[in-house]
Amino acid sequence: MTTVLRGVVPPVVTPLTETGRFDEASFARNIERQLAAGVHGLFVLGSSGEVAFSTTTRRREVLAAAVRITAGRVPILAGVIDTQTERVIEHIRDAEELGVDGVVATAPFYALGGEAQVERHFRALRAATQLPIYAYDIPVCVHVKLSVDLLMRLAADGIIQGVKDSSGDDVSFRFLVAANRAAGSPLTLLTGHEVVVDGAYLAGADGCVPGLGNVDPAGYVRQWDAYQAGDWQTVRAEQDRLADLMRIVFAAQGISGYGAGVGAFKTALQLLGVFETNQMPEPVARLTGESVAGVRAVLVRNGLLEA
Amino acid sequence: MTTVLRGVVPPVVTPLTETGRFDEASFARNIERQLAAGVHGLFVLGSSGEVAFSTTTRRREVLAAAVRITAGRVPILAGVIDTQTERVIEHIRDAEELGVDGVVATAPFYALGGEAQVERHFRALRAATQLPIYAYDIPVCVHVKLSVDLLMRLAADGIIQGVKDSSGDDVSFRFLVAANRAAGSPLTLLTGHEVVVDGAYLAGADGCVPGLGNVDPAGYVRQWDAYQAGDWQTVRAEQDRLADLMRIVFAAQGISGYGAGVGAFKTALQLLGVFETNQMPEPVARLTGESVAGVRAVLVRNGLLEA
Amino acid sequence: MTTVLRGVVPPVVTPLTETGRFDEASFARNIERQLAAGVHGLFVLGSSGEVAFSTTTRRREVLAAAVRITAGRVPILAGVIDTQTERVIEHIRDAEELGVDGVVATAPFYALGGEAQVERHFRALRAATQLPIYAYDIPVCVHVKLSVDLLMRLAADGIIQGVKDSSGDDVSFRFLVAANRAAGSPLTLLTGHEVVVDGAYLAGADGCVPGLGNVDPAGYVRQWDAYQAGDWQTVRAEQDRLADLMRIVFAAQGISGYGAGVGAFKTALQLLGVFETNQMPEPVARLTGESVAGVRAVLVRNGLLEA
Amino acid sequence: MTTVLRGVVPPVVTPLTETGRFDEASFARNIERQLAAGVHGLFVLGSSGEVAFSTTTRRREVLAAAVRITAGRVPILAGVIDTQTERVIEHIRDAEELGVDGVVATAPFYALGGEAQVERHFRALRAATQLPIYAYDIPVCVHVKLSVDLLMRLAADGIIQGVKDSSGDDVSFRFLVAANRAAGSPLTLLTGHEVVVDGAYLAGADGCVPGLGNVDPAGYVRQWDAYQAGDWQTVRAEQDRLADLMRIVFAAQGISGYGAGVGAFKTALQLLGVFETNQMPEPVARLTGESVAGVRAVLVRNGLLEA
Repeated sequence: MTTVLRGVVPPVVTPLTETGRFDEASFARNIERQLAAGVHGLFVLGSSGEVAFSTTTRRREVLAAAVRITAGRVPILAGVIDTQTERVIEHIRDAEELGVDGVVATAPFYALGGEAQVERHFRALRAATQLPIYAYDIPVCVHVKLSVDLLMRLAADGIIQGVKDSSGDDVSFRFLVAANRAAGSPLTLLTGHEVVVDGAYLAGADGCVPGLGNVDPAGYVRQWDAYQAGDWQTVRAEQDRLADLMRIVFAAQGISGYGAGVGAFKTALQLLGVFETNQMPEPVARLTGESVAGVRAVLVRNGLLEA
Repeated sequence: MTTVLRGVVPPVVTPLTETGRFDEASFARNIERQLAAGVHGLFVLGSSGEVAFSTTTRRREVLAAAVRITAGRVPILAGVIDTQTERVIEHIRDAEELGVDGVVATAPFYALGGEAQVERHFRALRAATQLPIYAYDIPVCVHVKLSVDLLMRLAADGIIQGVKDSSGDDVSFRFLVAANRAAGSPLTLLTGHEVVVDGAYLAGADGCVPGLGNVDPAGYVRQWDAYQAGDWQTVRAEQDRLADLMRIVFAAQGISGYGAGVGAFKTALQLLGVFETNQMPEPVARLTGESVAGVRAVLVRNGLLEA
Repeated sequence: MTTVLRGVVPPVVTPLTETGRFDEASFARNIERQLAAGVHGLFVLGSSGEVAFSTTTRRREVLAAAVRITAGRVPILAGVIDTQTERVIEHIRDAEELGVDGVVATAPFYALGGEAQVERHFRALRAATQLPIYAYDIPVCVHVKLSVDLLMRLAADGIIQGVKDSSGDDVSFRFLVAANRAAGSPLTLLTGHEVVVDGAYLAGADGCVPGLGNVDPAGYVRQWDAYQAGDWQTVRAEQDRLADLMRIVFAAQGISGYGAGVGAFKTALQLLGVFETNQMPEPVARLTGESVAGVRAVLVRNGLLEA
Repeated sequence: MTTVLRGVVPPVVTPLTETGRFDEASFARNIERQLAAGVHGLFVLGSSGEVAFSTTTRRREVLAAAVRITAGRVPILAGVIDTQTERVIEHIRDAEELGVDGVVATAPFYALGGEAQVERHFRALRAATQLPIYAYDIPVCVHVKLSVDLLMRLAADGIIQGVKDSSGDDVSFRFLVAANRAAGSPLTLLTGHEVVVDGAYLAGADGCVPGLGNVDPAGYVRQWDAYQAGDWQTVRAEQDRLADLMRIVFAAQGISGYGAGVGAFKTALQLLGVFETNQMPEPVARLTGESVAGVRAVLVRNGLLEA
């Protein structure tokens, strides 16, 4: 459990073919483009990686491909997200077998029952694996916030080794960073909010997991390097540019949530020649017409695509 | 798609052994007790049947046992609940293979994207099966309410054949009943709220799916018979008694949600000699000590158990 | 504190003139129409009576008119709703001075702090007045649910004498009725959900506070009389008819919440010749065009208006 | 409407006497201490200033005192928060009469009806006053988020001149800053989140409204000066220190929300000799015993108080 992961760790988007099958060639192009940009790790089967939209077979397929393509060049974290402990452990078994460097798990969901159950869940996961475990704090999906006290308790007992924070609660994140530092930094703390990574760095984050990093990994790597160099003007300027680029997710007409966000990322990657299509998993409709034009306009405006 | 299901259809609780395995003997005792009481159908792998807490293997095991034990004496509905369309279709395939009479599906969850996606989800399920589909309206778990307009649109196109309403929104349920009647009653409408089944009958429900029906199936059958006879005083009196019995779920100390509700049902069934243990699936703690004593007191008070 | 209030107690809608002033003549016509229909009490300055949309001066004006017009023919409850204890007590002072029979108060809102503060709030109100106090349970507005335990604790100490339940939680209401009965019925329990009054009566409610009662008070009185006579078929049939009439609130195009509901009631009362206009308080737009036509169609369909 | 307000603008806490009256002497000491620290403005009757807990008489009393004490040394913003447009306009009239430099208004609350009503509300306020209007975005209290599109539409028409952002949504704030800059900066953008002011500055905020600024105004002024000088290491270091100081709000035992936050601020100010008591408005209990000891410990740890 000693893999130290710092820096930019994009949650890799999962490309599909027109008929909804896994498109490994596009997946490989995306990973190679990210590695070429200098990312420090990959998070496969995150929310952006459509983990909750994937069958067990699909999950194994994606994970196997990621491991094969990456070939050890950077560490791989695997999302093992599911409703309940034993179901999550099944995904952990697959992840172990396929050879990843860590797993990322949320609180259980669908039938909630308070923080004691969330704690018991993570403790059961630890009992089941030797891999580093990242707690994924994403209340918008699981409808529970992981408290600072819970996370530090789990850290003190070696249950978890990191946190991916997608809670949207930067106040809580600040307190988490302080508590972690006071405890000797047992946790690696990554932010999932691609639009305010600069603020998270100022707060003391160890890295970021930006969905938008699929579209512009180089920007996030430049920002990380500036952060390491203490060059806050560059950190901020990159963030302002990336925030404007993030406006591709507002291009989606009549679609909200995952369909708008990942739909826009897939559309951008298709326009950039990385993906074959912007196909989405059922029951999500892909972006078309005006929505695609909107994504294109933002890419052009930000210099990622020629007019 | 012609199975007509009316009356009392308890969501069968799934017993576990001390070590967390499926306890088929207890399961059989529970089903036989319900059939002896005269229930009109069984809903296996509902929320109370710990569907979201069960691996695919466990789900198959439970479903196979239910079919084998019931042996066609009443229709069986199978919960096929999961985060996304293709995952649900995998469960539908299992249910078809094992031989159930209908399936019950919720809206997709974890990464929501609006009603259009919910509609597309149910349409994709219909394209995948010939079995009757019941839409399960349970916003407390999936965080979206199925609107009357959506349900009636799906009904008009033959996509769904029934609704299990656990929305807690009796105003909406009233409008649903009226809309269904106006459309020629294409839907079978079942309420999941065991404490106010009388009000749902007055509103025009076709039946109920009471978790508490695991504990006192005879009471719900008597209530149904009174409803069919137009004897509202008996309908009401049974409900008052059952509402008091439902207070077993308040006996749970320091546990909330699923753990309190199903925990109390399992504890009651153990006290009644139906289940071997009140074991719960990870990460839920079983009821112990004072909580068990509280359940016992309510059972005694209501004459289901001797003091 | 001995006024016993049972039966139909409509929350009287507050008519405005075109220029937004209080229209006392229309208000008088509405009250006379309700008294003629046989209602058992009036609730002035409820949510439907636009209490939260009214200045202190307006509130006094409305209350004074209600007392003067009603002239003791039925008891009057006055809404004294505001964000905080002392502000509520100021409204209670006005209500006492103007001569009402009871006051209706919600939990404090805007800056919530848990049930202990809600309890302290009601206890402070009791210390400030001799009038009966009804606790108004309306989480959709104040974002806190009044628990059965809290209400029964307040009842036991003589703090509150009744509850107006607009919580939408009929399961909780059932438990409240049972707890109240077990305690010797210290509370008068009224339901605010006009579409499911029949279910509330079956559960044991002492009466109803139906916003729709402004439009069809006679229907709710007939339903009450049938309830008293144990004629559940009539109770149910009236409810089915009233539920259809309630569809006037769906006629509002592009407006939701209070604006749709009270907007529809005001529009219906204008169409019925009771109100001069359907003017709404700032910042709510009145219903116009298609929305008014929609209300008219529902009234005609239900025989309240000629085609 | 030309008052430009940049920098540190603490939301001034309202001290009470033991018997719950306004304690003007303590109020004056607090304001003088803040002015001495170099704050750039004062926000009186904000949420921390217990606006929602104050009668109209109390509000006038507090505002008059603030104007008299400040005597034009810095601009004063006055909270005019209430449920509805006309009620807010009454408070604006008082604020105009008493001589403030701007008003701060939230969306209407209690009976929500969508963004169109929020927009109409702010437009009606503008029609009623010549004072600069700050939109107060505080969904935790009013249960609606002010969208970037709405705010920029209001800005473009000169309806609002600034925003106090207490939404907790730093992603949205980033987009608001960008949209405001693109529109020629018609709005002054202030953050209310005292724990992450550094991130807001990096995002481009024009200032902050920190409740904790009542306790340590000098810290926030030093941070602002460092921001103006481009010294991000100092901005960050001050923030880390202030975040630790903010832990006084976690000292409250058994109290949450406003009672914990403002209760801790008042307790700290009492311990610092600025306030006579830490009395709270009804129905909020003041901090006592262990809670007070907890506040003291944090103050000592951060060097504001001797051990």
